[in-house]
Amino acid sequence: MGINRKDFIKHLGVAAVGGAILTSCKDQKDQAINEAYDTKTSYTWKMVTTWPPNFPVVGEACHKFARQVNEMSAGQFTIKVYGGGELIPSLEVFDAVSSGAAEIGHGASYYWAGKSPATQFFTSVPFGMNAQQMNAWLYYGGGLELWKEVYARFGLLPMPGGNTGVQMGGWFNREINTVEDFKGLKMRIPGLGGKVLEKLGATVVLSAVSEIYTNLERGVIDATEWVGPYHDYTMGYYEIAKYYYAPGWHEPGSNLEFMFNKRAFEALPKNLQTILEVATAQSNMYVLSEFEAKNNEYLQKIIADKSTEVRKFSPEVLKALKEKSIETLEAIADGDEMSAKVYDSYKKFQTSINQWAEYSEKLYYEI
Amino acid sequence: MGINRKDFIKHLGVAAVGGAILTSCKDQKDQAINEAYDTKTSYTWKMVTTWPPNFPVVGEACHKFARQVNEMSAGQFTIKVYGGGELIPSLEVFDAVSSGAAEIGHGASYYWAGKSPATQFFTSVPFGMNAQQMNAWLYYGGGLELWKEVYARFGLLPMPGGNTGVQMGGWFNREINTVEDFKGLKMRIPGLGGKVLEKLGATVVLSAVSEIYTNLERGVIDATEWVGPYHDYTMGYYEIAKYYYAPGWHEPGSNLEFMFNKRAFEALPKNLQTILEVATAQSNMYVLSEFEAKNNEYLQKIIADKSTEVRKFSPEVLKALKEKSIETLEAIADGDEMSAKVYDSYKKFQTSINQWAEYSEKLYYEI
Repeated sequence: MGINRKDFIKHLGVAAVGGAILTSCKDQKDQAINEAYDTKTSYTWKMVTTWPPNFPVVGEACHKFARQVNEMSAGQFTIKVYGGGELIPSLEVFDAVSSGAAEIGHGASYYWAGKSPATQFFTSVPFGMNAQQMNAWLYYGGGLELWKEVYARFGLLPMPGGNTGVQMGGWFNREINTVEDFKGLKMRIPGLGGKVLEKLGATVVLSAVSEIYTNLERGVIDATEWVGPYHDYTMGYYEIAKYYYAPGWHEPGSNLEFMFNKRAFEALPKNLQTILEVATAQSNMYVLSEFEAKNNEYLQKIIADKSTEVRKFSPEVLKALKEKSIETLEAIADGDEMSAKVYDSYKKFQTSINQWAEYSEKLYYEI
Repeated sequence: MGINRKDFIKHLGVAAVGGAILTSCKDQKDQAINEAYDTKTSYTWKMVTTWPPNFPVVGEACHKFARQVNEMSAGQFTIKVYGGGELIPSLEVFDAVSSGAAEIGHGASYYWAGKSPATQFFTSVPFGMNAQQMNAWLYYGGGLELWKEVYARFGLLPMPGGNTGVQMGGWFNREINTVEDFKGLKMRIPGLGGKVLEKLGATVVLSAVSEIYTNLERGVIDATEWVGPYHDYTMGYYEIAKYYYAPGWHEPGSNLEFMFNKRAFEALPKNLQTILEVATAQSNMYVLSEFEAKNNEYLQKIIADKSTEVRKFSPEVLKALKEKSIETLEAIADGDEMSAKVYDSYKKFQTSINQWAEYSEKLYYEI
């Protein structure tokens, strides 16, 4: 899953937003978190999201979040949810919430790699942790504290906000039997997944989401990734792709995000702060559960349709992808101090929780 | 994990409670759910739990739940949390909430198998679903609706309230190399796990939690299960057991529960109903994450201590356990109409989500 990187870069250099961030950082130091209760003052906030309007599961979860916050606050707190492009373009969400133009955002932190490379570790990295492991790291392994540190510089407060679970590896019109088959492959795969494939000789072609289908059909690209069976099915790729490969080694459990304008959040009465925080955890739980509940139904439709063959990458191919993934992650850590700090925490936690998985989840799946 | 079944049975026949249930059922029909907001009326509710006071992770989560409900409601809603035995014995939680003596309970639905055998499917069954799968079933696969149906008969409203993740198979002073080794094994293992082992010739010995250590040390029992490394370590079993076996085939992801007195819940103003519901989902997310984050640290302590050998059950042993488990589950379904309905939903969902796991979680763990 990813958003057009060109759109992203286009919006990075907005000078006015840069100024707003600096002001916001300075003010933060003097600002205390409001600990008082208040059930009288009404609040109406804007929530901008990176998702298409009414995007299944994730966009719906944003609306559910807003509805429940309104109910919990007995109507005191109203949140208006905007899909990508409805108020601002998807990739301006970070800047809009940072500047306070909107108070809440929902997206995925790896969209903001241009702001700080360390953000990528808080969504998903190739051969990284799955959903359950990510949540353990974020809530109880120091991950969320690091994420808060990265975002504080931009006047933002992040919270986990849903997880896709293990994604699929993508739709291909060329067989991938050996590592050699990546050479010359034109694939739409943004972010770190794309960097890894480039190391194996593929050409990354980025395009707007609306153009993927046509590009794949016309051979402009040989392959594309998207999310998992449920979302992929609605995009219709099974009609035009020969192979659907598993697993999504590049996104084994993408954690989505709520981001709050830190200043606005901290100025809220304590009751509303807690309402927002608790509601984000519910979204996190519900989004993953809905993905997991629906993916097989659509995987079976794809299998039944017979125009696409569902396959698994070979161990040899996965081994090569993993090697290049680790090189890619290490290069990020080498190039940026904060990324090094985050990667160190991430890597240690992953190693540890995988030791436990040998006796629990992994072992249990093997039965 | 389990509670002394003898204590449990002792409290089943309380006639006064039975009467209260019938009254409550009748009244329910006439009762509409309150949809109005009210931020003025104060509520002070009692929450009784099956856990020892300050039980790590789970007991702590109950206190966190109470604190956050209080904050979200700006002090309107106070919940007093009681550990097992502080207000009532652990195994009276169901009856106490059913009768309205307490408004909220926290426990595990399989403790109430004597009330309705179908309750067992909502915690964990041998060779059943793991935590992520259980949540998918409960929230988006019809599981919670069935659970509500089972509990409604007792004037109760259940909600998922945490998950232990895959548990461990237990502490043994006898090697389990083949199925034959279960013959004559004296093990403390309550519930369905115990029934399965009995089919393989083991003798189930139930004892109060406080007596497990001594019984294992003195050879009154050859083996015991508990939870997973974090909780097991604090019980000190590693000091006296030769082997620590994985995985917890009998509890591959035990879903814990909040239960509300249905009448009391439905009479609450809508804002407080939603606060409670959303807070349960946060507990669910946090409890699993904390277990997952802490288990390896304690597993490594157990490994480092060297007085216990950490082992995995052999594929042959697991195959035999699985066969007997399926027999056990089918017998429950055969003997009770509601169990048949729940097991049918459970089994179909498990089959389906495991098809998806072949391309996602399971495949990813294999890399």
